[in-house]
Amino acid sequence: MQTLKTGILKALRTVYDPDLKKDLVSLGMIDDLLITNATISFTIILTTPACPLQEFMKQACIQAIRKEIKKELEIIITTIAKVTSSRPPAAILPEVKNIIAIASGKGGVGKSTVATYVALSLANHGARVGLLDADIFGPSIPTIWNCEREKPAVFKQNGKNFIIPLERHNVKLLSIGFVANSQEAIVWRGPMASAALKQLIQDAYWGVLDYLLIDLPPGTSDIHLTLVQTVTVTGAVVVTTPQKIALIDAIKAIAMFKKEQIQVPILGLVENMSYYFSNKEKIGTPHYIFGKEGGKKLAEQQTIPFLGQIPLLPIICEQGDVGISSNKTIAPFDTIAQILAQQIAVRNAIYQPTEIVKKSY
Amino acid sequence: MQTLKTGILKALRTVYDPDLKKDLVSLGMIDDLLITNATISFTIILTTPACPLQEFMKQACIQAIRKEIKKELEIIITTIAKVTSSRPPAAILPEVKNIIAIASGKGGVGKSTVATYVALSLANHGARVGLLDADIFGPSIPTIWNCEREKPAVFKQNGKNFIIPLERHNVKLLSIGFVANSQEAIVWRGPMASAALKQLIQDAYWGVLDYLLIDLPPGTSDIHLTLVQTVTVTGAVVVTTPQKIALIDAIKAIAMFKKEQIQVPILGLVENMSYYFSNKEKIGTPHYIFGKEGGKKLAEQQTIPFLGQIPLLPIICEQGDVGISSNKTIAPFDTIAQILAQQIAVRNAIYQPTEIVKKSY
Repeated sequence: MQTLKTGILKALRTVYDPDLKKDLVSLGMIDDLLITNATISFTIILTTPACPLQEFMKQACIQAIRKEIKKELEIIITTIAKVTSSRPPAAILPEVKNIIAIASGKGGVGKSTVATYVALSLANHGARVGLLDADIFGPSIPTIWNCEREKPAVFKQNGKNFIIPLERHNVKLLSIGFVANSQEAIVWRGPMASAALKQLIQDAYWGVLDYLLIDLPPGTSDIHLTLVQTVTVTGAVVVTTPQKIALIDAIKAIAMFKKEQIQVPILGLVENMSYYFSNKEKIGTPHYIFGKEGGKKLAEQQTIPFLGQIPLLPIICEQGDVGISSNKTIAPFDTIAQILAQQIAVRNAIYQPTEIVKKSY
Repeated sequence: MQTLKTGILKALRTVYDPDLKKDLVSLGMIDDLLITNATISFTIILTTPACPLQEFMKQACIQAIRKEIKKELEIIITTIAKVTSSRPPAAILPEVKNIIAIASGKGGVGKSTVATYVALSLANHGARVGLLDADIFGPSIPTIWNCEREKPAVFKQNGKNFIIPLERHNVKLLSIGFVANSQEAIVWRGPMASAALKQLIQDAYWGVLDYLLIDLPPGTSDIHLTLVQTVTVTGAVVVTTPQKIALIDAIKAIAMFKKEQIQVPILGLVENMSYYFSNKEKIGTPHYIFGKEGGKKLAEQQTIPFLGQIPLLPIICEQGDVGISSNKTIAPFDTIAQILAQQIAVRNAIYQPTEIVKKSY
């Protein structure tokens, strides 16, 4: 039996994680190996429940074992996920494994939409997900999630009040829109907005989260600086449309995260409003209303991962207006969520932990 | 001859300016009345060269005179424009008759595009026009006006340096984009951005302008506050798409300008990206990609003038990317520019001058 186990492990050492470029045994991804007279069973510990390579790795394991072990045994593989983290022990949000900033530079390119469907998709895969709307002046999350009139509960602990994020379709949500009147303008200078953001981060009871997505406002100013000075951000996703005018601002957002004093890894770029089909069947030539593949080309130029294109689908606009009513995702977003989850795992395995930005801005 | 003159003036007293609701003689709009044996000639002084009622008023004058004066005389009417102003004598930009803020709340709805084509259109009608890009973090004006690599000249007066705005197609242009590297992000907190805006306003040599359009960034924060605390703003134009998510932010922008401590009159609302034609001939049913008439309905709800709808035209996106190359306007923008010029004249005639916002924010 010991020889059989050695053989199986030898076989599994030939199976590489294509992202992390190491074998599954060395990566500690194989657990609970059990051999009986009739079966071999073990667990693959994935770095994310949204792993797009799940099936690929299972098949690779089976093939490797069949090649090494001639005995006809049934192979039973279970997968579980332990989302990795590169965040150092922190005073603020210590239970959040990954903090992902969704940025764009330019407004109106679909940050909140991308954040919404990616959050839904990650939650559908079984991850514990939070979504924080950091756009103090134009919060969109309450509308998209159809909870404009909801007020989050508050609880007291050690004499301090904590806000409890709302929960919809297994995603924890928080936005200034839940506490401010939606008809009124919040006319504040930067320090007030920064203080509000800090409150939403520090004074909220987020609990354990695999992913906390932070939907940033446009620009590269107070909110962005306060975020990176308050918490260690695992990485950033940049959203753009194919228009040059949006790409220019996306470049600025990328440049901000790459700044020597900031250094938040870019996990990838999403191209939104890529094309439009004028018929319901979505056939024929797509209309490239805002230009063709501008985002894809930018990702190549900047050598950052391209997470995918999202067409202008009427369903996205409609749901944005009336609010989502189920946990149903939309295909291109689901793919993007999986690639993003994968990129987060790669980032955690390869790059140094992000540090709190200490430079005073 | 005197009786004839009296008769003509009597006739002209029956012609009303439909906006200002007074007759042309009382409004001081008739000048240079000259009667010869064969002709009556006079000048109508319009409140804007982009007046859409020009031809209407000419015809109304001719009809009124023909009705009153039975003698067959040729009537020669000249129109000139003296753009009105309601700005009180000011230390900052005293030579600028009207300062118009182009705002939106939400980013990416087309503020810069609207500002661009309205500026072109007003200039084409003969007005002296300036366009200031107040979006410090995502300036779009250099790209749209195809002068990304241009640097404005500087001249010294009384030991102080003044920036000379660029001039394109008779429009004076200034943007932080002319002085900053477009590939880099300006990562500043609010006070730095506010200081930059003040410099673009105060340290620029704008000269005499009928209209200075200010293209604001999204949100309701530092730049907006600094603007209304620095200069008296004649009025604001709010741009939105028909999407609920954009309308919500447009409501916030309107609320900001209406705030008791701010009180900048809303001159009107523009609905951008209203519909799309999937064929080049622009016939058949339009596609309401972002919803139908959301902006129009909002203008009605808020009882503010509706300046018009702008379809999603490929030419707008293309010119936004490669930059405009002539002073050619696009039809719906030209109509909007005329209605806006009219609304500015109405505002100047009817409402109190805007005051500098004194409340410290």
